[in-house]
Amino acid sequence: MTGYSPDIEAAIARTRIDVATLHAQLTKYGLVIWTGGNISGRVPGADLFVIKPSGVEYDDLTPENQILCDLDGTVIAGTPGSDRSPSSDTAAHAYVYRNMPEVGGVVHTHSTYATAWAARGEAVPCVITAMADEFGGEIPIGPFAIIGDESIGRGIVSTLAGHRSRAVLMQNHGVFTIGKNAKDAVKAAVMAEDVAKTVHISRQLGASLPIPQTAIDSLFDRYQNVYGQDPKGALK
Amino acid sequence: MTGYSPDIEAAIARTRIDVATLHAQLTKYGLVIWTGGNISGRVPGADLFVIKPSGVEYDDLTPENQILCDLDGTVIAGTPGSDRSPSSDTAAHAYVYRNMPEVGGVVHTHSTYATAWAARGEAVPCVITAMADEFGGEIPIGPFAIIGDESIGRGIVSTLAGHRSRAVLMQNHGVFTIGKNAKDAVKAAVMAEDVAKTVHISRQLGASLPIPQTAIDSLFDRYQNVYGQDPKGALK
Amino acid sequence: MTGYSPDIEAAIARTRIDVATLHAQLTKYGLVIWTGGNISGRVPGADLFVIKPSGVEYDDLTPENQILCDLDGTVIAGTPGSDRSPSSDTAAHAYVYRNMPEVGGVVHTHSTYATAWAARGEAVPCVITAMADEFGGEIPIGPFAIIGDESIGRGIVSTLAGHRSRAVLMQNHGVFTIGKNAKDAVKAAVMAEDVAKTVHISRQLGASLPIPQTAIDSLFDRYQNVYGQDPKGALK
Amino acid sequence: MTGYSPDIEAAIARTRIDVATLHAQLTKYGLVIWTGGNISGRVPGADLFVIKPSGVEYDDLTPENQILCDLDGTVIAGTPGSDRSPSSDTAAHAYVYRNMPEVGGVVHTHSTYATAWAARGEAVPCVITAMADEFGGEIPIGPFAIIGDESIGRGIVSTLAGHRSRAVLMQNHGVFTIGKNAKDAVKAAVMAEDVAKTVHISRQLGASLPIPQTAIDSLFDRYQNVYGQDPKGALK
Repeated sequence: MTGYSPDIEAAIARTRIDVATLHAQLTKYGLVIWTGGNISGRVPGADLFVIKPSGVEYDDLTPENQILCDLDGTVIAGTPGSDRSPSSDTAAHAYVYRNMPEVGGVVHTHSTYATAWAARGEAVPCVITAMADEFGGEIPIGPFAIIGDESIGRGIVSTLAGHRSRAVLMQNHGVFTIGKNAKDAVKAAVMAEDVAKTVHISRQLGASLPIPQTAIDSLFDRYQNVYGQDPKGALK
Repeated sequence: MTGYSPDIEAAIARTRIDVATLHAQLTKYGLVIWTGGNISGRVPGADLFVIKPSGVEYDDLTPENQILCDLDGTVIAGTPGSDRSPSSDTAAHAYVYRNMPEVGGVVHTHSTYATAWAARGEAVPCVITAMADEFGGEIPIGPFAIIGDESIGRGIVSTLAGHRSRAVLMQNHGVFTIGKNAKDAVKAAVMAEDVAKTVHISRQLGASLPIPQTAIDSLFDRYQNVYGQDPKGALK
Repeated sequence: MTGYSPDIEAAIARTRIDVATLHAQLTKYGLVIWTGGNISGRVPGADLFVIKPSGVEYDDLTPENQILCDLDGTVIAGTPGSDRSPSSDTAAHAYVYRNMPEVGGVVHTHSTYATAWAARGEAVPCVITAMADEFGGEIPIGPFAIIGDESIGRGIVSTLAGHRSRAVLMQNHGVFTIGKNAKDAVKAAVMAEDVAKTVHISRQLGASLPIPQTAIDSLFDRYQNVYGQDPKGALK
Repeated sequence: MTGYSPDIEAAIARTRIDVATLHAQLTKYGLVIWTGGNISGRVPGADLFVIKPSGVEYDDLTPENQILCDLDGTVIAGTPGSDRSPSSDTAAHAYVYRNMPEVGGVVHTHSTYATAWAARGEAVPCVITAMADEFGGEIPIGPFAIIGDESIGRGIVSTLAGHRSRAVLMQNHGVFTIGKNAKDAVKAAVMAEDVAKTVHISRQLGASLPIPQTAIDSLFDRYQNVYGQDPKGALK
């Protein structure tokens, strides 16, 4: 018994389901192997988020074993799953939620092509229209930072601050994405790997052609505000 | 009640089924991710075509939520699916149907290797016999054009005019294919990605050998008129 | 009623099942797309072989719609499937069976990496032990030859004559493999693509190290005569 | 009747199940084709291990047809599966178990990217944090050694002796991995291919950035001792 209102309890329950089931998209799109990668979702209306347990296999994830944390990344004792350790990237997720109130979901993977760019410390340039649509420019590269304190979270937030992109490469590490909710962050992770791969392959046989900035602006604006059945505008 | 004859209504119903079910081939062959990519099919005997709704997930596509349009790309009000937005590439599909009466299906994807050639603004050269069979020469590269008016449609039609190919790369964007019907255009999309990939990989380790033009001509003619159980000749 | 003995009829029936079901291995291992690729199997004890129909989708292949041919590649009238056209590569398969009596199965694909080497007219060098095991040396490159007469068959047979390999690349085209039976030829097709891919990738970042000829000989001999539960020695 | 105690019989039975079922992970992650690759597991509390039979297809593997061997690699007569030949790599597995008492599982594959590095005789450098986590440094390259005596086993053990890595590339051949048990060795095989692929792709477009040794040490220590629900420290 944690004493949340019925509305918050319902929101927590929905977020547990979302986070648990969305992990299947990471395996479907080949972004993760074994127990790597993690998704979290902010609980709407509360200073809480739900995140994957550490080192648990994808087939074993259920709404009940996802872990509820406060925005400092502390596990909420007495809630389902709280007897296990949360993702080892929990501090980074928490930092993002504390510092980017518009963010409702965070995803982290070591997806192959994104990580390959990250290992060179190189941003993915915006040379295909799908990238302009989705990210409004390059996917930027953040600093090298190791796990264990706030340095990864700070690197994510400070790098994203200067870009429209919902994805950031962390040097020698992998990719973090943000979204309006967990599903939107998962979409960003899927698209980030796809464009990282396409641009990589394009570059293998020569220089790619630039897209004019005005066209990038126009594509981003249109995709955020017109595409789909219910566009709501850009995240940031 | 839209007042079409029973024959046209039956043709619309068949086209809805074709277009909805053919999208599964795009995911099967890995040509699309998330909600990207789209297929349309002309309704035989009418100035109408059926196209995918915008931003809807592949698992949610049904015959009933495909969208019926006239050849200006206007949604036919009062028909199933007409309460939703059609694919954001509808104007390009409509332009092709208006200007290429022999075309019965159009497909658009951002498939990886085709898009990689497109980002360099480079045609795929015809150096494998499967490409001579299917496309009768190179897969040409069209202009950079952004969404929102007729410029993509014009780029497709004008580029295809000078080639036997049923596939065209649009610079920095992706690939459009045409066919006698929607299935034939899907086949062209599958084959275009396959040959774009094979030729890319071949080039990575050195120059590929050219195929003599007489052999290309002979292979294309034979494949269009002899291969399969019921060949009907080339589209164009 | 074709007048074959009960033994031959039974052998034909078994070969139809083998050929029809083995096609699933080509899709499982990603060697073919759409209706490309074909498998045939010699009928033991008769001058006959069974081959895939032309341009039929993989999901639609059944024992009954495979096509029975004599060693000139002529369809045996009045047998199941004989109302349809056999694979457009039937003449090449027939040539192999006529000229290589030890061959019981033939496979043809345009698998990506094998075809990439073929488009450069380059043999795959034997730099990994799995290749020494399976092919006893390089996968050789045959001539450019177009479909429609015996030139593909002649190219396959003459190129294989100088090599231990059960696989041959045909320039600008794809790969043909042979085996003791259809399944053995399918295994060769799967392994040929795998080693073509591995050696390609190895070469992308520098020269691969050669394997001494004595080691290649020793590995090939051992694999053909010791590996598995019931080794029977090399094909040729 | 082999005269083992009930406890040992139970341990053998569990190891048979583990080894048989873990092979499905090799196909799931695309590390093997056809009948290539093999897994073994040491029987806890006994000088025995269980290994895959030679040349048997993955779909046909069952606990009962796995093969029980002593640490010389000799099949234990009269036990289930003992009428068949064990994996042709049995001598190498046995050598590892005899010489590395901490090892409870061994895996061998010809996975594509690992084998590509092996064909150049090149170690995979530690330039991504996932590799520091899992392997604590580079994946080293061992000598060229052919099958048939103890030379492969000796190459594995002597190469691993100087490294934290649980994976070793064998020149021109493939990869061997070790673990606390069979599952842990399978995880190492999956991760080894993943990082071999990512680092390969990163290198294709330029030099990757090094990770400082102190960061590698810190990441390895943390991953072995903190990650997951029940960390037990590094293998070696």
